[in-house]
Amino acid sequence: MVGKVITKSKDITRVTLDVEEIPKKWYNIAADLPGGLPPALNPGTKEPLKPEEWEAIFPKGLIKQELSTDRFIKIPDEVRTALAQFGRPSPLYRARRLEKALRTPARIYYKREDLSPVGSHKPNTAIAQAYYNFAEGIEHLTTETGAGQWGSALSMATAYFGMKCTVFMVRSSYDQKPYRKYVMKLYGANVYPSPSDKTAFGRKTQAEDPDCPGSLGIAISEAIETAVGTPNSKYSLGSVLNHVMLHQTVIGQEVRAQLAKIDERPDRMIACVGGGSNFAGFTFPFIYDKLKGKNDARFIAVEPESVPSLTGCSSGESRYDYDFGDTAGMTPLLKMHTLGHDFMPDPIHAGGLRYHGMAPTVSALYDKGMIEAEALPQDETFAAGMLFTRTEGLIAAPESCHAIASAIRHAQECKRENKEEVIVFNLSGHGLLDLQNYATMLGM
Amino acid sequence: MVGKVITKSKDITRVTLDVEEIPKKWYNIAADLPGGLPPALNPGTKEPLKPEEWEAIFPKGLIKQELSTDRFIKIPDEVRTALAQFGRPSPLYRARRLEKALRTPARIYYKREDLSPVGSHKPNTAIAQAYYNFAEGIEHLTTETGAGQWGSALSMATAYFGMKCTVFMVRSSYDQKPYRKYVMKLYGANVYPSPSDKTAFGRKTQAEDPDCPGSLGIAISEAIETAVGTPNSKYSLGSVLNHVMLHQTVIGQEVRAQLAKIDERPDRMIACVGGGSNFAGFTFPFIYDKLKGKNDARFIAVEPESVPSLTGCSSGESRYDYDFGDTAGMTPLLKMHTLGHDFMPDPIHAGGLRYHGMAPTVSALYDKGMIEAEALPQDETFAAGMLFTRTEGLIAAPESCHAIASAIRHAQECKRENKEEVIVFNLSGHGLLDLQNYATMLGM
Repeated sequence: MVGKVITKSKDITRVTLDVEEIPKKWYNIAADLPGGLPPALNPGTKEPLKPEEWEAIFPKGLIKQELSTDRFIKIPDEVRTALAQFGRPSPLYRARRLEKALRTPARIYYKREDLSPVGSHKPNTAIAQAYYNFAEGIEHLTTETGAGQWGSALSMATAYFGMKCTVFMVRSSYDQKPYRKYVMKLYGANVYPSPSDKTAFGRKTQAEDPDCPGSLGIAISEAIETAVGTPNSKYSLGSVLNHVMLHQTVIGQEVRAQLAKIDERPDRMIACVGGGSNFAGFTFPFIYDKLKGKNDARFIAVEPESVPSLTGCSSGESRYDYDFGDTAGMTPLLKMHTLGHDFMPDPIHAGGLRYHGMAPTVSALYDKGMIEAEALPQDETFAAGMLFTRTEGLIAAPESCHAIASAIRHAQECKRENKEEVIVFNLSGHGLLDLQNYATMLGM
Repeated sequence: MVGKVITKSKDITRVTLDVEEIPKKWYNIAADLPGGLPPALNPGTKEPLKPEEWEAIFPKGLIKQELSTDRFIKIPDEVRTALAQFGRPSPLYRARRLEKALRTPARIYYKREDLSPVGSHKPNTAIAQAYYNFAEGIEHLTTETGAGQWGSALSMATAYFGMKCTVFMVRSSYDQKPYRKYVMKLYGANVYPSPSDKTAFGRKTQAEDPDCPGSLGIAISEAIETAVGTPNSKYSLGSVLNHVMLHQTVIGQEVRAQLAKIDERPDRMIACVGGGSNFAGFTFPFIYDKLKGKNDARFIAVEPESVPSLTGCSSGESRYDYDFGDTAGMTPLLKMHTLGHDFMPDPIHAGGLRYHGMAPTVSALYDKGMIEAEALPQDETFAAGMLFTRTEGLIAAPESCHAIASAIRHAQECKRENKEEVIVFNLSGHGLLDLQNYATMLGM
């Protein structure tokens, strides 16, 4: 069944899709990366990691995806059903009121990943990961979370499949953002502040620095240690790895179908990057199209000035090299743009963008010049978020405010250059549980 | 264009409508109330309030609706466009996973009013009220809010129409629930804790009781005083009055269209009641149908045990009589079920259900035996909310948890009596900004 363009008046455009239009396949960019995706390495041997070496932490179904070079991977019916339960397909909106406020000739669209029950794009992979673990009889997943978006999504997904979930939450967020902790507990998850006393690495970290505020890298180490040491348990990662990226491509595939319905073609596609998954999910299907000559879009990854894993490469702050995904060095080595696995980020408000590395797929694309990157200052992103609230009516996550701020910059450039370009950004999440950050930044 | 039934598998049913299916008319139950709706009275003369007496606080367009006995009132295109911008029509879900957990033969459906940008049904009337004021050149609206749902909705609606907004927020909520205060400020509203020092009544109240935690009645008095004393300003009420009730009937009209698409007929329709607006909007179109012999449903209003404005009538705790809508006695007299306008409610977590009175329309229906009422204890409602989160994946507002808890009771009754009945409840809002209440009640 075909979805419809909805243009009720000059003041609104909302493009919806039917449940049947949830994509049936994931797109795997590993099939199309020039030179292929650099493999993950065993830290000891420096040899490409063998499938069986992944098995301590991941189920076979996900390892197969992680190592796959198949361009398309079928989405199981059980996953599509769960995606529908939790709100997919999500609508695409035209930001007419924002355009008007900016007096730009550009047409601005945004994809609404904020409408999932946990308020972000994270369920797209959480559901898939929980499913593949569930299908292999795993009863318990462990993971890390920063501000709590990912932990909430995995807690929801494990509840859906009747599994247990243990989340190590960066201590500073655990203390400062109690609401997302409660979300996870309401779904039935065990939530511990990291560094915790539940793992050897957590206890060691606490001993060295009793006031350690934690980091995603530390929390990953604790989650992996717990998965490895607990029967019938696996670990789940919310970003970075390629199976995560490909799960997110439902976003871009929906956007493609939605833009096609209104005969639009994107000129600039913008998303924020922490580990890279919402950017990947949003842009990869369009990068595939561009390789086939079907569009000539620019793809812009937006990061915080204080965590310049991509943009810091020119100044030497970051490098494109093999590094660990976590702080303790328990993960395989991944080739990525990295600030160093011992990087301790500023306590900026966009917790989801504080990760030291960048997904190997996104890194490879950046290295090859196939995507661009921008770094934005925090105050500009919150001011952009406020303008978005007052024009479009929605409260964006601090992470998503980076995409909004960049879209505004590009719309202003279009105004100066009188270009009627099509700017599309990904509204990766809502900011209802980040209102204290808004209040602090905007002096409310 | 016709919407579609979506039944992807045995595990999900989601019924959506297209934007074109946003109702084109509001239903006004005043046309069908046996004996008519008792008029509001002038407190001095005890005579029915004349239209011009309403004009100090409301615009003519809304007064006309308030006094109308027309069965249907056309929804202006500008209002339908704004309703679409903010997410209408909303989907109807079948709670298959909740049914399974309860092992009930009943089929349970819920309407998702939680998907609006401010997370409740309140924008349905906020948008309409802002529009009619805007259309008459009013530049500033004042209102009261308890937990903040209504204040957030009016702040969003006034921002949409480029108007100013002043919100008096019950002081206990202002202090304990900073997030919704920030939502209102982010939309650009002025927000003051009530009792405040901004009004004569607020100062008087503070002088008499410096520790006064506030109440909706006090905040209404302050908002009215401010509207009357400020040039080009009017007052806006989020519940109780009939123009509010009829604006909410978009909910029930959508549910009617959605149930028709899947050939279902409701047996029991359940919604929580504070002032009565989500219950009214959800049920009134079906009450109209029942009067025409098109259904034989029961309509169940659920209130907290500690605020028994309907159910307290039998014990004498409440009475069906003329009373003020506010504490200071500045409003007209309304015939309603009331606990007394000086009622000071327990500080229960469902702030939206703490109002001393009940909408005159809902009260009249209850008095005539056309609807039923139930009072539920607070702990049962939160336990029901947690079960709903773990089965359906959504976090409901504490107010909506009353409807969930009642739906569960009725589903259990259906199980005992082996009845395959259709239970439909209104999920009036999400609980993302009420997580501290969950944490307190569930000991998280």
